[in-house]
Amino acid sequence: MYAIGLDYGTNSVRSVIINTQTGEEVGTHSWVYETGEKGIILDAKNHNLARQNPADYIKGFEITIKKAIEMAKENDSDFSSDKVIGIGTATTGSTPLPVNEDGTPLAMLEKYKENPNAHAWLWKDHTAYQEAEEITRTARENYPHLLAKYGDVYSSEWFFSKIWHCLNIDEEIFDAAKSWVELCDFVPAVLAGKTKPEKLVRSRCAAGHKAMFNEEWGGLPSKDFLGSLDPKLAELRDDLFEKTYTSDKEVGKLSQEWADKLGLNTDVSVAVGAFDAHLGAVGAGAEENRLIKIMGTSTCDIIISKEVEKDIPGICGIVNGSVVPGYHGLEAGQSAVGDIFNWFVNVINPGSDEQVSHEDLTIAAQELKPGESGLLALDWNNGNRTILVDQRLTGLLLGQTLHTTPGEIYRALVEATAFGALAIINRFEEYGVEIKEVVNCGGISEKNELIMQIYADVTGREMKISKSSETCALGGAISAAVASGQYDKFEDMQEKVCETKEKTFTPIPENHAIYKKLFDLYMQLHDSFGKEGKSDLQNVMKELLDIKEEVRKQ
Amino acid sequence: MYAIGLDYGTNSVRSVIINTQTGEEVGTHSWVYETGEKGIILDAKNHNLARQNPADYIKGFEITIKKAIEMAKENDSDFSSDKVIGIGTATTGSTPLPVNEDGTPLAMLEKYKENPNAHAWLWKDHTAYQEAEEITRTARENYPHLLAKYGDVYSSEWFFSKIWHCLNIDEEIFDAAKSWVELCDFVPAVLAGKTKPEKLVRSRCAAGHKAMFNEEWGGLPSKDFLGSLDPKLAELRDDLFEKTYTSDKEVGKLSQEWADKLGLNTDVSVAVGAFDAHLGAVGAGAEENRLIKIMGTSTCDIIISKEVEKDIPGICGIVNGSVVPGYHGLEAGQSAVGDIFNWFVNVINPGSDEQVSHEDLTIAAQELKPGESGLLALDWNNGNRTILVDQRLTGLLLGQTLHTTPGEIYRALVEATAFGALAIINRFEEYGVEIKEVVNCGGISEKNELIMQIYADVTGREMKISKSSETCALGGAISAAVASGQYDKFEDMQEKVCETKEKTFTPIPENHAIYKKLFDLYMQLHDSFGKEGKSDLQNVMKELLDIKEEVRKQ
Repeated sequence: MYAIGLDYGTNSVRSVIINTQTGEEVGTHSWVYETGEKGIILDAKNHNLARQNPADYIKGFEITIKKAIEMAKENDSDFSSDKVIGIGTATTGSTPLPVNEDGTPLAMLEKYKENPNAHAWLWKDHTAYQEAEEITRTARENYPHLLAKYGDVYSSEWFFSKIWHCLNIDEEIFDAAKSWVELCDFVPAVLAGKTKPEKLVRSRCAAGHKAMFNEEWGGLPSKDFLGSLDPKLAELRDDLFEKTYTSDKEVGKLSQEWADKLGLNTDVSVAVGAFDAHLGAVGAGAEENRLIKIMGTSTCDIIISKEVEKDIPGICGIVNGSVVPGYHGLEAGQSAVGDIFNWFVNVINPGSDEQVSHEDLTIAAQELKPGESGLLALDWNNGNRTILVDQRLTGLLLGQTLHTTPGEIYRALVEATAFGALAIINRFEEYGVEIKEVVNCGGISEKNELIMQIYADVTGREMKISKSSETCALGGAISAAVASGQYDKFEDMQEKVCETKEKTFTPIPENHAIYKKLFDLYMQLHDSFGKEGKSDLQNVMKELLDIKEEVRKQ
Repeated sequence: MYAIGLDYGTNSVRSVIINTQTGEEVGTHSWVYETGEKGIILDAKNHNLARQNPADYIKGFEITIKKAIEMAKENDSDFSSDKVIGIGTATTGSTPLPVNEDGTPLAMLEKYKENPNAHAWLWKDHTAYQEAEEITRTARENYPHLLAKYGDVYSSEWFFSKIWHCLNIDEEIFDAAKSWVELCDFVPAVLAGKTKPEKLVRSRCAAGHKAMFNEEWGGLPSKDFLGSLDPKLAELRDDLFEKTYTSDKEVGKLSQEWADKLGLNTDVSVAVGAFDAHLGAVGAGAEENRLIKIMGTSTCDIIISKEVEKDIPGICGIVNGSVVPGYHGLEAGQSAVGDIFNWFVNVINPGSDEQVSHEDLTIAAQELKPGESGLLALDWNNGNRTILVDQRLTGLLLGQTLHTTPGEIYRALVEATAFGALAIINRFEEYGVEIKEVVNCGGISEKNELIMQIYADVTGREMKISKSSETCALGGAISAAVASGQYDKFEDMQEKVCETKEKTFTPIPENHAIYKKLFDLYMQLHDSFGKEGKSDLQNVMKELLDIKEEVRKQ
């Protein structure tokens, strides 16, 4: 049997056909969205704006599923289209889009097709930053329970910030929308032919992590709360949803229309969608006490836990069933990791004569011992998502001399992100979520061994790498196989198909010893600049010089 | 009448022939020392080592004086060699060299010519850092008065650190030396034929600023003190000096030998030498309440004052007569200014595609408003000389986002050095040395208008630029003219020849208002990392973002 995993990324969508017994990828195809710049509609006058054309989402699965099937037929003599039992969908989020009463995206209506507000509001659209601040302020004052599971801050990237911003800047679009749909709900709805708002099956993951949906307070935030923002938001609540579903559930069977177009049959289960990071964690083998780190331009750190005794301050989301049904999904993350390295390489663009690429800088950084540069950095160039949950923080680099090289700075930036990662691990453990194993996936973990070694040395933990490089699609396929009934639960298939690579990165004790000292200094800066309270920093530069001299003597 | 100013720099020596009535430069020539790398003997195994060949000093004045005379004859029909009335000498320092009983540098003896320890120990030789620490420790414990005028720290660059290090690592050379001579004393001694140690005329400036010579405690530090470091240093004291002289005094007349070789007569006065910064300040017009800033790779800030009521903490030297005789010379400075910009341009080498030079980065920096980048830096890449007097401090850059550009960083580094300059001005004024005028000289002040404007905007003071670009040689010529008796005192000639350029830089009020806020944040970081005591830094990044947003709105 085979399942199709769909993975809607920021610039492109990929379909992967996976053997549900072995996890083998037998066919795959990806396609860059055709609207805008690399699939994103931008606005030269407003750098916060990032939208997408919903038509691309539909065209995207049609093209990529067909091509992946062709490839599977070529690659795998066992494969045939009628062995496909399900389709699972992982997407970016929160990426909501306004739809009319038929469930048609407003952007696909002639009338609104040129209006960016009628399009999908991509996860990284930050136009709603003022609304996010107002939601945070209002909730903190009068509805503090709402934010307790979101690190006490509601983000400009999230569902209600965006919808409210639309109301504030383009009331016509807000009024024309019958409802708003997350991308991870939209795609399964189209496949199953259930796009009408009242029939839409909504994802627990999206609703729980981005729309403050929680059974503790009866689902979505109350009309009182929404009405205190704007009466029209309270009205909208009736056209949103009362129930949400985990990704082991079926939205429905593949519609006749799409079965015909895709060359599949109508027995194919369409699973409830979820966010890419969460299904990626499933594909990477999420289980209790195993932290999954999805490492890319930013990171997402996901762990599941049967019981969560108390809210964990600074952890951005705790949602029952958002990853593996039956467990709480806990989400943390760093706002910028690969993006910091990219900034240094592409914007600062150091060392034009000798060092220009990530590879060159990695080689230069590799020649250094921990502590040898005397540098220390904070990884806050894009704010701090976990554990401080504060967007209004910035980067810091300390310890420069007149001899500091680009390679030294590159290494210090990598170390800073590793210290940030350790701060997250420590926070989980302080609140009773024990982490016995760390599995990494995503580009950085596959491409850069130095970074993985530094993470092992800093955290004092073995770093494992997921064998699959398409964990989001694999997670989607797992959800599809369970939704179709082939497996009872995620764990049954995960056990068969989720593996880690043979090569792992184990801490080098001498390095870990140095990094322990550097981490203490990092936390000193972290708390001084990130938290209230007084501290004495006179030791910082001197201790770094002591460490540097000690290391250089060796 | 004409005087010759000699200026011994780090890599080359320059002779300038100056009309003593008008200050006009009628002939000039410079020559790069021929030994070592750009005139410096280095050691690949020890980056602290920097020595020079004393033979180059002699060859240097011979070549450059002859060539300058040739040029003067061509340029100025009034000039003739017999109108030269004196030679004044400005040099780097502390640059001591060991000599034998005849006053011959050990490095010029066949036996020692390959031994770097027998050569001149260039000012920036840092091999004696351990001895400097030990001198500081010993003085603080038992002889605290010795350091009170040196900001409480004795440097590895200074006279006794270097001599003691020679004793510790190469006792043969130490024993072979009858005495040690500063470069600024060596050159006049050769010219006047008075090189024998017992006949050597020693500079007040060099002795006072680098050898802890002060009449308050009877000249050089006591035998007790020197003996507590090493008994042999106490013995050496007898072969050093009891008296020192200001640069309005004559070492003697030009010797017959050198008069013949140079084509001058033996009436020529050879003035007592001094350090380049101090004679440079004379040439730039040093007078009471006028701060002279010599801006290059590092800065030297010099002001003179009739009375100094009390020692000023953090000011590296207060020496009676070291600049203008009859006044105390007060010396402060920043360990790195141009060197920080050079590091960023040459070592970090940012923006290979678009921005590679100081000029390019200056253009990029110029397009920014104060506060617009959200960045703040500390100018400590080479430690802090004034006012913290702490070598064990390092650079810091804060406020980076994923969009921070090289131009923004360049500007932040310039601003950091301007904040450091303001901290020095404030310290002088807190201790009663009022600064009514600031005159800048040196490469940066002539070459980079943006930097001068930022200094004006940060300090809230007009920045004037010295008209002469050879202030050190001009200062030497002034000392020669006074030593020869043409003028009674420095002030009489300064009044005639020291001018500032018409173009000055006045503070722009809006910019100064922003920089006041940024300076408060700078001082917050300055005190947190540089001094004992606790502070709350949570405001820093947020205030920088507030300022950035406010400025960008305008």
